[in-house]
Amino acid sequence: MNSFPSLAESLNGEHFWADLQAQAEIGALSPRGLRRLALDDNDNRARLWLIEQGKSLGCRAYYDAMGNVFLRKEGRDSSQAPLLLGSHLDSQPEAGIYDGTLGVVAGLAVLRTLKEQSVEHARPVEVVAWTNEEGARFAPGTSGSAWFSGQRDPEAILEARDDAGTRFGDALDSCLALLGAHDTTLRAEPYVPHAYLELHIEQGPVLEAQGIAACAVSGIQGVNWYTVEVQGQANHAGTTPEADRRDAFMGAHALITELKSAVTQYDDQVRFTIGKFAMEPGSTNTIPQSARFTIDLRHPDQTVLDKLDSVFHQFCEWKWSGCSVSLLPGSRVAPVAFDPSLVELVNSCATHYCPRAPQLVSGAFHDAIHLAKVCPTAMLFTSCRAGVSHHPDEHVERADAELSVRALAKVVEQLLLPTKANL
Amino acid sequence: MNSFPSLAESLNGEHFWADLQAQAEIGALSPRGLRRLALDDNDNRARLWLIEQGKSLGCRAYYDAMGNVFLRKEGRDSSQAPLLLGSHLDSQPEAGIYDGTLGVVAGLAVLRTLKEQSVEHARPVEVVAWTNEEGARFAPGTSGSAWFSGQRDPEAILEARDDAGTRFGDALDSCLALLGAHDTTLRAEPYVPHAYLELHIEQGPVLEAQGIAACAVSGIQGVNWYTVEVQGQANHAGTTPEADRRDAFMGAHALITELKSAVTQYDDQVRFTIGKFAMEPGSTNTIPQSARFTIDLRHPDQTVLDKLDSVFHQFCEWKWSGCSVSLLPGSRVAPVAFDPSLVELVNSCATHYCPRAPQLVSGAFHDAIHLAKVCPTAMLFTSCRAGVSHHPDEHVERADAELSVRALAKVVEQLLLPTKANL
Repeated sequence: MNSFPSLAESLNGEHFWADLQAQAEIGALSPRGLRRLALDDNDNRARLWLIEQGKSLGCRAYYDAMGNVFLRKEGRDSSQAPLLLGSHLDSQPEAGIYDGTLGVVAGLAVLRTLKEQSVEHARPVEVVAWTNEEGARFAPGTSGSAWFSGQRDPEAILEARDDAGTRFGDALDSCLALLGAHDTTLRAEPYVPHAYLELHIEQGPVLEAQGIAACAVSGIQGVNWYTVEVQGQANHAGTTPEADRRDAFMGAHALITELKSAVTQYDDQVRFTIGKFAMEPGSTNTIPQSARFTIDLRHPDQTVLDKLDSVFHQFCEWKWSGCSVSLLPGSRVAPVAFDPSLVELVNSCATHYCPRAPQLVSGAFHDAIHLAKVCPTAMLFTSCRAGVSHHPDEHVERADAELSVRALAKVVEQLLLPTKANL
Repeated sequence: MNSFPSLAESLNGEHFWADLQAQAEIGALSPRGLRRLALDDNDNRARLWLIEQGKSLGCRAYYDAMGNVFLRKEGRDSSQAPLLLGSHLDSQPEAGIYDGTLGVVAGLAVLRTLKEQSVEHARPVEVVAWTNEEGARFAPGTSGSAWFSGQRDPEAILEARDDAGTRFGDALDSCLALLGAHDTTLRAEPYVPHAYLELHIEQGPVLEAQGIAACAVSGIQGVNWYTVEVQGQANHAGTTPEADRRDAFMGAHALITELKSAVTQYDDQVRFTIGKFAMEPGSTNTIPQSARFTIDLRHPDQTVLDKLDSVFHQFCEWKWSGCSVSLLPGSRVAPVAFDPSLVELVNSCATHYCPRAPQLVSGAFHDAIHLAKVCPTAMLFTSCRAGVSHHPDEHVERADAELSVRALAKVVEQLLLPTKANL
């Protein structure tokens, strides 16, 4: 038996990389990328592939009422809460091969190393693949982790339908039947993990720009969505003097100038995006009657989101270029700060391999957002090319992937040490 | 016989108003408005109605190769170039009853008064209804007047097609056959009028706001159309830091701020309208890849349009929020200044009835834009409610219509006086 701390160093990078490529064949697109919509045949085949990998390592496979799949490696004391690692196997319609799967395959690599190195540990270690993180087929996403963490009502999840009218609950039943037929054990209830760790591609450009393979993630930004409607008056573009215009475009333009100015008064962590913009009647020589646009506002700090929300509402009570404005709040998710001690541990392991690694706040959602409500949670990011994801061109350098999985193994190593048993 | 200068005062306002309401039954919409698309059955019936009215006044009716209809009242000297009055009878798909027809029916009222008062005059007076001013069925509009004034190639006009695929030339052939069968004489060639006068609703809010019935029009604004394309980079709204964004919306927003600032450095006669605005991919949580918008820029002075054109091109060579920009010039029409002496005469007649009447520059196109190239031309505007046109709600007060037609008659009076014969 090797000494305990060698776990990260002895991890077989070649096998890990081969697993990552192997899973990419399930639902592969030509010439690259993959398509595994939640609970479709490919997504279910990916579950079975994962279960096979786990069994070959002597792990027992479990599934729950939401189709989440767990591989369990027992320690000396099966009564202890498991250390949970994982992410998701489902994808966007035209996706890359790393989003989600990197974290699941990384967990598998840790299990394999524990077994290959015959590491002695008391606490069970589990690897999870959460159901429907993407929300691409059934909206909203993060179904499996939200249910597991008690954050979402199962009824609401089961009644969602895809574009073809298929009910989530019906697709789930087929998946559960398949899992039940593959020597996999149903767990009646969720449990509270000892801690949850999720490795994921950054889906942003920061690490690549800094030449850094991996880093710790200290939390997830909160998001406020809005739809803004500006009501003006359609009129002839040639005959209407400036003073008589109620131009919905110019109203929207002036309002957005002020919203942007309010937003940039905060730190550089604010994200302010106008992704949709439409006008009626939409004619070159007609002053627009109305304009409608969306705002995606993000920040790691709820107090900043609240302040900006109040400023946005105040601005939208005023007239802009003579136009009245309605601000319609949409979906909103509060920011999450991960467990500080766990983030610090992850950071020390990440900087062991990547000395200048920053701590990032995730701009995208992950299953970790829900797990953070029930147990100490943290994430690691892996650098990806140009921040591209949700596209077949998504790309991760093998060396970066390997460094990040070693950093994850190093965190596991620390958490399984007897002295760290009570995080 | 009444004395010559009584023409304007003796004009029968009741008959004029009854004619205006009578023509509105041709192609009437419920509960109000009308639909007479160029060369459709209703538009042709309106031509026949006009011809009947002219014949009842003893006028001879002519038509030309473009379907323009002329009513001619002879004077003592049929060799003199006619004084031409008129506008158009065709309409937008859901139109009011005054746009165009007001000017034709006003001309008819002048012919009737000349006859009723047995006015002696040397110069022939003609009233014209131009074909396809609106361009609603066959684009572009002002076909009849552009051809008559030698400003547009007949082949280009004849080959235009409507949405149903019907060729302008084929629809025109049916119209010409109908006119030929109604004791109307074909004129082989256009002629050069002594002068052209067009009375039209303002289609803008200025006169109504000032409580003025009618005014002289000194010219028509020039128009430059542009399409602007802003090319950015699509990216995740949450994960992409400000510094890494090439946000096509924010690029467009910054550019438009500067364009608007350049435009407002000029006088209050500039009109700057962004009527269409679209983005790709158009997703709330995706930074826009591209934005595309139109500009409708108008001014009465070509040198101002040229200066702004040069500024626009310069701005669009720069990067905006890291995005590159393309400026695609579209249709452009040079401003027209009407004949100063004729405008002065029209102004003196308008202010006779409306003492505080301004002189306006037309923001919309009219057939007069082409006539101005071949003969002294001027227009009168009649106040219309809230500037609304191209809509069944278009409305003109009877008192305003009557004052404006009297002002037109007063101009005719002056032009037919022997001392004014050589304008």
